Amino acid sequence: MSLDSAVAFARENGDRFVEELKELLRIPSISTAPERAGDVRRAAEFVAEGLRKAGLDQVQLIDTSTATRTGHPLVYAEWFGAGPAAKTVLCYGHYDVQPPEPLDEWLSPPFEPQERKGNLYARGAVDDKGQMWMHVKALEAALAGGGKLPVNVRVIVEGEEEVGGEGIAAFVREHGDRLKADAALVSDTELFAPGLPTLCVGLRGMIYTELEARGAATDLHSGMYGGAAPNPFIALAQVVAQLKPEDGRIAIPGFYADLQEPTSDELDAWRSLPFDEEHYRKTEVGSTELTGEEMFSVLERTWSRPTMDVHGMPGGFIGAGAKTVIPAKAVAKISFRLVPDMKPEKIFELYKNFVESIAPKGIVLEARLIHSGEPIVVSTDNDYIRAAAAAMREVFGKETVYVRGGGSIPIVGDFVRELGIPTVMMGFGLPDDNLHAPNEKFHLANFHSGIESILRFFDHVGKL
Amino acid sequence: MSLDSAVAFARENGDRFVEELKELLRIPSISTAPERAGDVRRAAEFVAEGLRKAGLDQVQLIDTSTATRTGHPLVYAEWFGAGPAAKTVLCYGHYDVQPPEPLDEWLSPPFEPQERKGNLYARGAVDDKGQMWMHVKALEAALAGGGKLPVNVRVIVEGEEEVGGEGIAAFVREHGDRLKADAALVSDTELFAPGLPTLCVGLRGMIYTELEARGAATDLHSGMYGGAAPNPFIALAQVVAQLKPEDGRIAIPGFYADLQEPTSDELDAWRSLPFDEEHYRKTEVGSTELTGEEMFSVLERTWSRPTMDVHGMPGGFIGAGAKTVIPAKAVAKISFRLVPDMKPEKIFELYKNFVESIAPKGIVLEARLIHSGEPIVVSTDNDYIRAAAAAMREVFGKETVYVRGGGSIPIVGDFVRELGIPTVMMGFGLPDDNLHAPNEKFHLANFHSGIESILRFFDHVGKL
Repeated sequence: MSLDSAVAFARENGDRFVEELKELLRIPSISTAPERAGDVRRAAEFVAEGLRKAGLDQVQLIDTSTATRTGHPLVYAEWFGAGPAAKTVLCYGHYDVQPPEPLDEWLSPPFEPQERKGNLYARGAVDDKGQMWMHVKALEAALAGGGKLPVNVRVIVEGEEEVGGEGIAAFVREHGDRLKADAALVSDTELFAPGLPTLCVGLRGMIYTELEARGAATDLHSGMYGGAAPNPFIALAQVVAQLKPEDGRIAIPGFYADLQEPTSDELDAWRSLPFDEEHYRKTEVGSTELTGEEMFSVLERTWSRPTMDVHGMPGGFIGAGAKTVIPAKAVAKISFRLVPDMKPEKIFELYKNFVESIAPKGIVLEARLIHSGEPIVVSTDNDYIRAAAAAMREVFGKETVYVRGGGSIPIVGDFVRELGIPTVMMGFGLPDDNLHAPNEKFHLANFHSGIESILRFFDHVGKL
Repeated sequence: MSLDSAVAFARENGDRFVEELKELLRIPSISTAPERAGDVRRAAEFVAEGLRKAGLDQVQLIDTSTATRTGHPLVYAEWFGAGPAAKTVLCYGHYDVQPPEPLDEWLSPPFEPQERKGNLYARGAVDDKGQMWMHVKALEAALAGGGKLPVNVRVIVEGEEEVGGEGIAAFVREHGDRLKADAALVSDTELFAPGLPTLCVGLRGMIYTELEARGAATDLHSGMYGGAAPNPFIALAQVVAQLKPEDGRIAIPGFYADLQEPTSDELDAWRSLPFDEEHYRKTEVGSTELTGEEMFSVLERTWSRPTMDVHGMPGGFIGAGAKTVIPAKAVAKISFRLVPDMKPEKIFELYKNFVESIAPKGIVLEARLIHSGEPIVVSTDNDYIRAAAAAMREVFGKETVYVRGGGSIPIVGDFVRELGIPTVMMGFGLPDDNLHAPNEKFHLANFHSGIESILRFFDHVGKL
């Protein structure tokens, strides 16, 4: 391709790209909601059509269902016009989104995209429809008018990232040959600060669990039985308080055994990042204080320390007003973020054994693993990381920084393990983009900078 | 009245009484559900019509709404044909019911009454529509065919018992003269065992609260912020675990200060009741073990010891699957059962101060009082209690026992305090009637025995 003409095309067509993205954002492709399966598929078809129009070949939906589960489709496409000697880049993204609740906190409806002050607001705007769409549009810009790319490209876009990515994991495991490439490009992370080019070189893993507490055989009246019948919510509270005491350290025996500390170089680099803890507390978190392990910096706490969160506690009476029930059972949705080299399966076993050993009297506890992902660290001593760093530096006019992410992108671990390739995590979100929360947004300037960065990345890889 | 002819009328018309009760049970008069206000009113009108047909005078609905709240109506009726020298009995009941959830555990729909093996299944069957209907039908039987009662009667039936009874409390406070009587009769309790005539002479009070924990300003992604942002569910768990450690004793300073122990006579009587702890655990509670304060018997734990329960924890993500949110806020619905002489207002203050003092880092806690009721003990050295005990002995052919109830009937305290009259708690439920739970039922033999016991109670009071 001519880099200049591709960049020019992207600039000229930027407004159209955004309008197309809005169409995609209108599709409520919530992968965790069974009743949205049709919408999820519609989003997959929309992405496939976009790839087709961009000029890619072999565009297809790949069913991920098996005998035991109904999966959401993968979207696959490729372009091999750069010839057998050229490098191949595997572009990954996801078209599914988190549930939008609580709905009443959105300033505009989650599936009716709205532009305000240079930002595009909608569920999935930045995570990950908007960032995935940058890939599609960069490819379109490169191939426009008979243009060529200096690299071969495979594209794989999944619809289950927000629910654990079981389908793509199985596909990578079983059909790794169909994704053969030299490096993967993932845009599902963020800039460390506005205007600061950033590559993410580490991600936390996770296990997402449900802990069910069962007490009485049926719901009981708390007047008649209160004082003698076990209360599953109180039991869960006692267990959760024991799992995570107020010092923030997780009390499961053996939990920290496999943890690898970051290198001192990495810690030094983090210390030099423009990070103001008080600003972060005020503008991003908004709580009266930050919490967690005080002996670690906030970046360490969110990047290189494991942690535990409770996301919801279904059961009992949650309507308005009063109901004096001792519910027969209650559930806590509990997840743990993991860091290298903690193993999800091992951590789940330790957790399960520990909670069972501390089950309060009269309560039967059952821990269920909902999904898991491995933690990952990518070496910065790598041609593809250097290519990406150069591309971003050119677009943003600043030296690229290396950070880790606190979230999980399970597929990155699969790419390393199954395909043996490094992943470049070049993302363009911002820390205040409200991922997984009401009023998710994408700063549109970053959408356009992202497309140009991707084009320049292809250009640099073409010269390797 | 001729007691014999009234009893005969009740027996002859028993089947019709049950069919009428079913009509009332079909009305989903759930007082805590704002969208059911129309049904609640319909139930009030049904009760009023029943009282009119029974031959009572002055039948009327009394609005309990004020400038600041929308209330459910009281139903009032009276019969003063016994003359100024006769005693006056105030009959109390309630026509509102608890929410029926969880719906999928009902064997027949909660508002489609069904008879199975001598039991009538429906929400409200025993609590309290069925027992209130015994009063109406006893009055009808006594007054049928120009009959007379040996006592004057006032009837007051409320529609807010399950939500704290604010309306009737205000009415009793402000219009006590309209309820002037010598004693009150309440049928909202149970027999200690099948066939064992039982009078309840003590009730626990309660405070029902919501404890809201607020952390971040908005919902956050647990990947990005987990480890540094406060988690309201974990905070609530830590607070709940501190409020009620595993020994069952409530840790609020001063909580037990005003507690009056039962007399040794009362404790001796309780010990002689037919109570098998293991049978109770298996057939009523159904948990692997009972919980609570081990140094007290189960009857003490549920009758004369205060306790704490958590009924639900709204907030966060409670749908199927996984959402990795750190919610900005979460709530625990927490109630405390109180015993004489604990004061609800004082306990709420102690609780509020304590939880605020132990609020975890980064969390703002707000305790809200939803409703409250005072604990009560009625002296057994009382003509009306003796009249009731004799009436029940005659019907059941056994000596009447005195027990306490673990639940709260706030109005009983109001009758003592505002009207200065004792309350006879003569109830006909059974321990396995599933109050406030799925498959609530009323054993129909007890419905009929209840009507006869009430007629005999009126007869005994007429001779005082």
